Amino acid sequence: MKVIINRNKLLESIQHVTKAISSKTAIPILEGLKIDVTTNGITLTGSDSDITIQSFIPVEEEGIQYIDELEPGAIVAHAKYFPDVIRKLPSETVEITVDENLLMTIKSGSAEFDLNGQTAEEYPHVAQIKSEVSFELPNELIKTMIRQTVFAVSTSETRPILTGVNIKAENNYIQFIATDSHRLATSRIPVEKGLEEFPFEQVVVPGKSLNELNKILDDSEKKVEVSIASNQIAFQTENLYFLSRLLDGRYPETSRLIPEESKTTILVNKKNIQSAVDRASLLAKDNHNNVIRLETSPNSKIEVSSNSPEIGKVEEEVTVENIEGEDLKISFSSKYMLDALKIMDSEQVKIEFTGAMRPFIIKPMDSDDILQLILPVRTY
Amino acid sequence: MKVIINRNKLLESIQHVTKAISSKTAIPILEGLKIDVTTNGITLTGSDSDITIQSFIPVEEEGIQYIDELEPGAIVAHAKYFPDVIRKLPSETVEITVDENLLMTIKSGSAEFDLNGQTAEEYPHVAQIKSEVSFELPNELIKTMIRQTVFAVSTSETRPILTGVNIKAENNYIQFIATDSHRLATSRIPVEKGLEEFPFEQVVVPGKSLNELNKILDDSEKKVEVSIASNQIAFQTENLYFLSRLLDGRYPETSRLIPEESKTTILVNKKNIQSAVDRASLLAKDNHNNVIRLETSPNSKIEVSSNSPEIGKVEEEVTVENIEGEDLKISFSSKYMLDALKIMDSEQVKIEFTGAMRPFIIKPMDSDDILQLILPVRTY
Repeated sequence: MKVIINRNKLLESIQHVTKAISSKTAIPILEGLKIDVTTNGITLTGSDSDITIQSFIPVEEEGIQYIDELEPGAIVAHAKYFPDVIRKLPSETVEITVDENLLMTIKSGSAEFDLNGQTAEEYPHVAQIKSEVSFELPNELIKTMIRQTVFAVSTSETRPILTGVNIKAENNYIQFIATDSHRLATSRIPVEKGLEEFPFEQVVVPGKSLNELNKILDDSEKKVEVSIASNQIAFQTENLYFLSRLLDGRYPETSRLIPEESKTTILVNKKNIQSAVDRASLLAKDNHNNVIRLETSPNSKIEVSSNSPEIGKVEEEVTVENIEGEDLKISFSSKYMLDALKIMDSEQVKIEFTGAMRPFIIKPMDSDDILQLILPVRTY
Repeated sequence: MKVIINRNKLLESIQHVTKAISSKTAIPILEGLKIDVTTNGITLTGSDSDITIQSFIPVEEEGIQYIDELEPGAIVAHAKYFPDVIRKLPSETVEITVDENLLMTIKSGSAEFDLNGQTAEEYPHVAQIKSEVSFELPNELIKTMIRQTVFAVSTSETRPILTGVNIKAENNYIQFIATDSHRLATSRIPVEKGLEEFPFEQVVVPGKSLNELNKILDDSEKKVEVSIASNQIAFQTENLYFLSRLLDGRYPETSRLIPEESKTTILVNKKNIQSAVDRASLLAKDNHNNVIRLETSPNSKIEVSSNSPEIGKVEEEVTVENIEGEDLKISFSSKYMLDALKIMDSEQVKIEFTGAMRPFIIKPMDSDDILQLILPVRTY
């Protein structure tokens, strides 16, 4: 195996695939980074068996020559040293050769590294999902939907299915749903051509996988092809292949959690409510499980407050755009509220309450495609 | 007590003094931040008893009004909550009032916080050193000398005196010296007027104190007045007062460690040797205690290398500007070498060896005021 390649391009690919590599793996070869050289280019692979990421570097792309010379072959490099070595090389190009004893020689400028490799034959096979159940979305839309939901997955393993995001195809919408049973986040987008429901009962992608995917997708309008099999999901862009296992088990039916009518509706500037909740949370952090209070007051105002006897208390009136319905006193986690507000891009948000003991809803003013739901805390 | 003050100015002062506040203190009142309001302005104090930092905010400075209203008084605020509260207030001004029950009311815009305070009478007295042993230096020079030496202090408590930086006045120079007994860093600057030797045998400032001082001094040409007493040192700028205890004990005489003659002298581009050593260190980190080798070779070159049988090896030839004297093979810690090179601002550095077993010296090419010394490691 031999390759002479642009160092920055190689480094970019390495940084993508190392996101899947963990030093805590039960399969020792997965601590390595697999390099496959074919006549078309180089494929790098990293995997922790839950997530597998492949990055392809073509010989030439859009008129830019990335690879000057290649002889096919394969090797598994040590993922702890190989990326740092490439990153710190002095020259713009790097020559990598592998001899019959699996010794990798890496030359760049005046520097020469000899690194012990492992045989690529021991590396697990990577499934290539090309199912008929697939749809295409722009990178940035997938990233947005991940950002709007993944924070709400459960971090506890008591109900493993809740550590994932449920992806649904329904009525010409793709919908992402996440809940930790205390709050719920959903985001949906219309898809142009009719999309049949997935033939699999449940598609639940681990939150961790979506966080990693979000990191390696760029913000462009380029398309991601999403393909789903019974226990795996693949996200494919031109040069990236991201494969994740799906979670086993039944995702709860969440639609009936969402109240259909509201008794108190508030329309408020997002930044105003966000910073008031943030201030109220300051004194609620340690002793109070982040719980703050919200109370309607006359004259189109609400009061946000928190009281921690040992430290002190905070009260703030927030002017709202509009308030309709019953008077209300309600307590909830400021953290959940801040998480929900953070992903809203609209200037104003609508908050719909159905009483102090019922879940309430936060939406952008101008869209029904994003919905955040928070369960209140019983304090009154 | 009452004060109406510019929020950003208050925040800047808070950020300075909180650098001295630790939550792990034996004196509970020191977990607080003391606020003294006098007719001239406000003084904030933070202390962990080793370091004390005071920051003064005048009513008005250079035509800018910082304080609109004040009634003298004092309080100790909770350093865990007070800074965050001030930082997140909505308006540019903040009003702080304290009632007879030590309750602080903080108002800004629509937000109102009530925080429990503690009585300022319990706060330890801060010594004001105004000794006759004092000198003035520009901020940026003090910062430079700290940066050039403090990294070399010992992090081990086996010889506590080595965790400090020795400050000396000698022959119209102020000199900073730090050593952990494996390497030594010194930096000196000439002082204009004749400076008598300090009347105290030793002035050794804890490295931690100097690191904190470095963080709060700005890079300006403004002067710092340094005053020394038998067990404390004070650094005073216009609005800052930084007090540190001195370390007890005898600082070793380090001048005899420095070889007076050299057997091999290398003049080399700093960035070239730095990046070659950095690369060689990559494979030396885990199994090899950071030890790398340097070997002179013919044709004005040196070879930097490292070998870690399980991982691999690295070799690199570095072109030098000039090489004089005997051939040499030497092993040393790449970490110490990188630390020493990092603080050199000159384009070229001079490295003076007196054999594989003797300490060697690194200096900027054009100055004798900075000297870094490293003890080699016996491997040959």
